[in-house]
Amino acid sequence: MSRSAAVESDQLYAILRRRGVLWPTADVYGGAQGLVDYGPAGAALKRHLEEAWAAWFLGVSPDFHRIDPAEILPEAVVRASGHLENFTDPEVVCDHCHAHFRAETVLEKARPEGVDGLSPAQIGELLTQQSARCPSCGSKELAIPRPFNLMFGFDFGATGRERAYLRPETAQSSYLAFARMWDVGRRRLPLGIATIGRAYRNEIAPRQVLFRMRAFTQAELQVFFDPEHFRPPFPTVADELLPVLRVDRRRAGAEAPDPTPARALVADGLPEFYVYFLVHVHRFLRDVLRYPADAIRFFEKSDAERAFYNRIQFDAEVRVESLGGFKELGALHYRGDYDLSRHSAGSGRDLGVTLGDGRHLVPHVLEITFGVDRNVWALADAGLSIADGRTVWRLPPYLAPTPVAVLPLIAEEHGRVADAWRAALGAAGIPAVSDDRGSIGRRYARMDEVGTPWCVTVDSETVAEADPARATATMRERDSRAQERVTLDTLLDRVRRGVVPPRPAAVELSG
Amino acid sequence: MSRSAAVESDQLYAILRRRGVLWPTADVYGGAQGLVDYGPAGAALKRHLEEAWAAWFLGVSPDFHRIDPAEILPEAVVRASGHLENFTDPEVVCDHCHAHFRAETVLEKARPEGVDGLSPAQIGELLTQQSARCPSCGSKELAIPRPFNLMFGFDFGATGRERAYLRPETAQSSYLAFARMWDVGRRRLPLGIATIGRAYRNEIAPRQVLFRMRAFTQAELQVFFDPEHFRPPFPTVADELLPVLRVDRRRAGAEAPDPTPARALVADGLPEFYVYFLVHVHRFLRDVLRYPADAIRFFEKSDAERAFYNRIQFDAEVRVESLGGFKELGALHYRGDYDLSRHSAGSGRDLGVTLGDGRHLVPHVLEITFGVDRNVWALADAGLSIADGRTVWRLPPYLAPTPVAVLPLIAEEHGRVADAWRAALGAAGIPAVSDDRGSIGRRYARMDEVGTPWCVTVDSETVAEADPARATATMRERDSRAQERVTLDTLLDRVRRGVVPPRPAAVELSG
Repeated sequence: MSRSAAVESDQLYAILRRRGVLWPTADVYGGAQGLVDYGPAGAALKRHLEEAWAAWFLGVSPDFHRIDPAEILPEAVVRASGHLENFTDPEVVCDHCHAHFRAETVLEKARPEGVDGLSPAQIGELLTQQSARCPSCGSKELAIPRPFNLMFGFDFGATGRERAYLRPETAQSSYLAFARMWDVGRRRLPLGIATIGRAYRNEIAPRQVLFRMRAFTQAELQVFFDPEHFRPPFPTVADELLPVLRVDRRRAGAEAPDPTPARALVADGLPEFYVYFLVHVHRFLRDVLRYPADAIRFFEKSDAERAFYNRIQFDAEVRVESLGGFKELGALHYRGDYDLSRHSAGSGRDLGVTLGDGRHLVPHVLEITFGVDRNVWALADAGLSIADGRTVWRLPPYLAPTPVAVLPLIAEEHGRVADAWRAALGAAGIPAVSDDRGSIGRRYARMDEVGTPWCVTVDSETVAEADPARATATMRERDSRAQERVTLDTLLDRVRRGVVPPRPAAVELSG
Repeated sequence: MSRSAAVESDQLYAILRRRGVLWPTADVYGGAQGLVDYGPAGAALKRHLEEAWAAWFLGVSPDFHRIDPAEILPEAVVRASGHLENFTDPEVVCDHCHAHFRAETVLEKARPEGVDGLSPAQIGELLTQQSARCPSCGSKELAIPRPFNLMFGFDFGATGRERAYLRPETAQSSYLAFARMWDVGRRRLPLGIATIGRAYRNEIAPRQVLFRMRAFTQAELQVFFDPEHFRPPFPTVADELLPVLRVDRRRAGAEAPDPTPARALVADGLPEFYVYFLVHVHRFLRDVLRYPADAIRFFEKSDAERAFYNRIQFDAEVRVESLGGFKELGALHYRGDYDLSRHSAGSGRDLGVTLGDGRHLVPHVLEITFGVDRNVWALADAGLSIADGRTVWRLPPYLAPTPVAVLPLIAEEHGRVADAWRAALGAAGIPAVSDDRGSIGRRYARMDEVGTPWCVTVDSETVAEADPARATATMRERDSRAQERVTLDTLLDRVRRGVVPPRPAAVELSG
């Protein structure tokens, strides 16, 4: 967020609520912790963000496909995936005020690196050593932590004998779909399965509005591949500089990323396919979402920090000023054959495939995961500028909630023609809005605040022209405030180009 | 489904599974009752159906807006809405084999009109009178029915003291959003709030794949209005014929609808606003989804059949051959001020509004509800034709999973130019697919089966033309199989027009 004074999270959230971008779910009942509702502007932005993600990542290969699976998983699935046993957060309960906390929160100061990998007993010792106090009432009577499962589970069906769970990550749905997708598809690797949809976690302490939520939207691509033969066209990306922060540099105390050529990462031991996708994630953040290049960082996780099944993990981070630093907005996980092997064992069905050369293989998985809600916040943080009393949300046209507003200079005199322009945009599939309240300046200001890239003002000159094909109106661009007279055709052409999100040049991947 | 012999539900489902349109969730684990996953073709069709619904119904008025709320509701919300107490199905359990059934299913033959409005005791009497038997094992040892709540409920947060529920209908989210939408909007009525998203019901006996599901997608528009002043421009629709089946005609044994002018329904006592929206729903089914005109019926529900808060209800039904008759695909409910009054009482916050003339009013609600999954099935049923060994899915271009396929006649010779055409379509925001496997005839057949309206074959003539702007390829239309040579520009123009779903002419509604 470029601004004179740094805007705090609370201030940013206030702007978003005021403009109807988002608000707490059930706020007339006092709200529900960890849930938000997206209003008209937020819902449109979120939808456009999802479409931009899909256009980009499905565009990487014609063998990548998008599915829309159910969010509920039977118990056998989450048992096999390990979530039933291991998807837990250590929880601390105050015996005095009965408040519940994540152990990580209670130990925040004593152990800023978090408590991943520590047993409940080890955490209990730390609490005693540090004379930890309840963050709510200050008491030292903290109960020994217990693992708290983060899945929402419930009875499924009427018998009381079946349990099901809201999926804790969309990825599981794609693993379950692999066998079916193999059968209906070209029966060759790589095969990409993408899902955009809700995942659910019963977070002990939801916070930061769109960052630790109990219901959130993930966009995930699982690339199933043959580790022996997966060779994306690496030379096409070899020279690209990636802002990485490697584990060794972190150990040396570095926080800023080092711009590193893709080829140097490969020389250093990372597989070509992994770096190839790192480049595509980087381009998506920089060129499609247009985060400032110097606000992006790929943060490598160490052995101890990664889940044991992840062989390589870089988190895609962006500096989010309102939250005080770099935040994880996505990640690339090389998961090996863990997932399909677990589901083969759990289901009793061999999920391996027989390849063209006769080999039988349990495909490996590269997971590209992306937090949609977090990026909505980060786009607001990066794009909203407040300066000289003017608030402007600099969003790319294909992300903006509304691409174009048609404004009649005087409602009574120019309303009919403005409606005709709006209808022509609608007929071309472009949802334009209208606004006839207040001065043109105030209307521009309202549109700037929700990121509308173009305003078109219909005036007496527009109305006076007898030939609709020659009539012109004033098109005003949000960021530069530049104005020019355009015909309806020029407007249509400009907006139509603007609302298409970028795609990479598709290539055939093999293996 | 136009075909020589009627296709059964099982056959239709087999085609849909085979083409990767949809399949049972977690099928490698034997499946999860009442849940489905949409594959690539199904996910795209479903998304296009949602966009067509939104374009049409949000197009009715600039004061209608789409939001994207969370699917989880705190307990206070479902207590106030009445779902905690009343959202139940009477359940019958067999004491012999322990199977669970909906009372309606056990009594299907004895009481085809269903058991709505009967108490558990009355249902128990009926079971005895009819000597009902367990549909599974044939035993007469059926336990007296108990009401079974259909919501999925679970602990929310870590304390064990909070409960939450998956929303049983998307409508509740829109009622909760009303106060916020009033505040951020123009503060005038009517105000429309639309939501497209999942709702969840723990059905005792899921069936008919996409008809009685445990997780399903609803598209719903709630129109909040002032009953004294809500006057849509009824004269513009007064002469339109609506295929209605009124309660009195049903009592006389009629099953076929009577084509009735909109003005006659108003003369008969239905409010103009209600009939105005009935017309828009009818146009959507007939002109946008293109169900055969004679397969559509608006089925009026009697006092006894309606929920007590619905003052008027017509179900939008379409004849679905594979399921043996008319099926409810949507409905229009005039709910009065029930919803906002309940949530005012439940939340302790007055959800009434003060209007321009100083009156304080709890707005009334007209609900237009639409089952997305059911319509996916009905579109397959109505559109898939199997004749002379040729399977064609006749979908409008804006609904088709893929609008256009680019086929290189010979992969090695024409693949590069075909890729360029596909890239040009992609750059215009049109996701084209490619297919180079097998003869052109087989490729056309595969595309026909998933409803692709246009195939473009790139051949040696295309490749030979040095000027890309003058190069032509063969464009083949799905239904007529007509072929013509087109330039890339002509193709782009044709496809671009085709993929925009129709919108009504927007008007300003007052009241």
